[in-house]
Amino acid sequence: MKKVAIIGVGNSKFGNRSDVNIAELAFEAVKPALEDAGVEAKDIEFTALGSVGAGAWYEELLPAVVASEYCGMTGAGLVRCEAACASGSAAFFTAYSAIASGQTELAMAMGAEKMREIESASAMEWIGRAGYYLWEFHNFGVTFPAYYALYANAHMAKYGTTEEDLALVAVKNHKYGSMNPIAHLKNRITVDDVLSSMMIASPLKLYDCCPLTDGAASLVLASEDKVKELEIDTPIWVAGIGYSSGTANLSKRSDYVGLEASVIASQMAYKRAGVTPDQIDFAEVHDCFTIAEIMAYEDIGFCKKGEGPKLIREGQTEIGGKIPVNMDGGLKAKGHPIGTTGCSMIYELTRQLREEATEKTRQVPLKNYIGLAHNVGGTGHYCYVTILRR
Amino acid sequence: MKKVAIIGVGNSKFGNRSDVNIAELAFEAVKPALEDAGVEAKDIEFTALGSVGAGAWYEELLPAVVASEYCGMTGAGLVRCEAACASGSAAFFTAYSAIASGQTELAMAMGAEKMREIESASAMEWIGRAGYYLWEFHNFGVTFPAYYALYANAHMAKYGTTEEDLALVAVKNHKYGSMNPIAHLKNRITVDDVLSSMMIASPLKLYDCCPLTDGAASLVLASEDKVKELEIDTPIWVAGIGYSSGTANLSKRSDYVGLEASVIASQMAYKRAGVTPDQIDFAEVHDCFTIAEIMAYEDIGFCKKGEGPKLIREGQTEIGGKIPVNMDGGLKAKGHPIGTTGCSMIYELTRQLREEATEKTRQVPLKNYIGLAHNVGGTGHYCYVTILRR
Repeated sequence: MKKVAIIGVGNSKFGNRSDVNIAELAFEAVKPALEDAGVEAKDIEFTALGSVGAGAWYEELLPAVVASEYCGMTGAGLVRCEAACASGSAAFFTAYSAIASGQTELAMAMGAEKMREIESASAMEWIGRAGYYLWEFHNFGVTFPAYYALYANAHMAKYGTTEEDLALVAVKNHKYGSMNPIAHLKNRITVDDVLSSMMIASPLKLYDCCPLTDGAASLVLASEDKVKELEIDTPIWVAGIGYSSGTANLSKRSDYVGLEASVIASQMAYKRAGVTPDQIDFAEVHDCFTIAEIMAYEDIGFCKKGEGPKLIREGQTEIGGKIPVNMDGGLKAKGHPIGTTGCSMIYELTRQLREEATEKTRQVPLKNYIGLAHNVGGTGHYCYVTILRR
Repeated sequence: MKKVAIIGVGNSKFGNRSDVNIAELAFEAVKPALEDAGVEAKDIEFTALGSVGAGAWYEELLPAVVASEYCGMTGAGLVRCEAACASGSAAFFTAYSAIASGQTELAMAMGAEKMREIESASAMEWIGRAGYYLWEFHNFGVTFPAYYALYANAHMAKYGTTEEDLALVAVKNHKYGSMNPIAHLKNRITVDDVLSSMMIASPLKLYDCCPLTDGAASLVLASEDKVKELEIDTPIWVAGIGYSSGTANLSKRSDYVGLEASVIASQMAYKRAGVTPDQIDFAEVHDCFTIAEIMAYEDIGFCKKGEGPKLIREGQTEIGGKIPVNMDGGLKAKGHPIGTTGCSMIYELTRQLREEATEKTRQVPLKNYIGLAHNVGGTGHYCYVTILRR
């Protein structure tokens, strides 16, 4: 397998981006990524775009070709990848594989999503379809907060996790989000703010849920030969990618206290990268709801099953703790443009591994120079885990 | 790069498939493909699904996870690939790259599309969006027959191509479609039938256009090691894949007599496969409209530019001719479930290369045992060319 490095990254401002269309939004991430890599748009040989809401919550049915042309990449091989909220990672995997297989020397993975063109009630319906439409959504009316509330209740019942534990995740992620210039939500919050916020799906309250966010991220990937040719200073190498999927039908899950797809995908990624969880310096994990971050700690092996709440209570996932998590604010505060999130996680990993996340005090101390991104689609319907190494 | 072979293929019946949902439709292709390969669903490590109409012309927003679960492949890595009408080939490329890079030993590429759940006027609107929604569709009201009519008129003006030449493509493809048990349209037609059919977008008439079709296709791909382990009798090897893209904005095209993306993608595929166009025994080309097949002859190098009409007039693209094209009836008669078509083309190539296309007289005579599939998204917005070799 050919070695592949990330040589350029870009990320648009996240938030309500009614000021731009999907192509203009993508350009805000692509332009800095190309400049960062020192390559031109026409040099890109293959482009994979993560995006979900095409024709649903934004108007373009074929965003890949429209965004690619707007960014000057016409002529490159092109595909849109969709794996629900893990679409960005799926696009990264596709661009990575194009190079790792030896077919391509220079590729782009990007994510672009506009979720706020339609009213939020419709957005909730569309996202609700992102499970098993005919069975769970249409028959039972289950939406995504309800899915994760089911997991939260089970985790609380089995492990004694409390609503305060969940709130601590939101407090931490808003804290770091407040230091991140691209974040959607920059307000710092307290445990009381979370506990007193509007109930969405018991026990999940408004501040347990990530926002509906518009945003784009872009990554330039290169072969080892291309890294040498371009004399890249600090290439960030892809150490390994793991992937898995879970049932669309939630009633077929064996339990509701973790996501099996996260376990399988992370184990695969560790094996391929040749590392163990304790070698990971820091991580981006999929905190679409606060319970999701706690389950992720456990599922990807940062602690034993049921000990996730202890990690957050002890501050082990903050800077200075055992394993800093979501130093960009996570989905919770940075925001979650669902097709973009995977690429944005890898943007953050790259900047941290280059020790460039110097805004205020977000930079994590690096020991092994290894970071991990854990990106889930649905409730583990899809999962990709990507490990990077400097 | 690791060698990759196709070891199992399946294709559902194409047509109006209101009798099944998207997952059941996929199963009709996946089950025979797995049986053909002699593997079980749980053995598949990675699955890529080509599908476009998720949440648009059929109800499931996340078809990949729903179809994958229904077919017993839960746990495998999973992504939906969208490249408009080239989505099936994009899914094939993704599954191929996962193996060629050495990450995976056994993968599945499949396509599944249901286009007839909504009324055809809405389908036409949705497909019209598949160009550049904001500019060409919304402002000018251009739909896909209109795009290809523009190309047909330019080709007629420059090269003297006639409406009869276009009709001959339809006559040929209906002839071979009539012999194909899975084809949507099985009626044989005459040049007069085409010329007297309803005008859709001048000069394209009803019989110049492919139908709106439901259907699925599935391909099991394996590494060389896996081919040996499974003792596969007749593996069909992937010799090379080429890809390209064109502008979403048609006004930016340099001419309207061919698709530059087809030229670039086919040249890349020939180079990677180490073959020349004259070594290709037979081909599947993207005949969404009759003019598209004639342009394809020229763009992929089966004749010089402008000589496509001569090929069809002389019967050179029938069995017995220089280069048989679309022996399965093509998009025109077999049908065009847009996310599926690329996989269905590769299904046909595989069966022909194994000399299994024995229904009536569809089997092409093989000399070099090399076949080519040319799959276009939009009017060259995307293009993938896949060359297989026995």
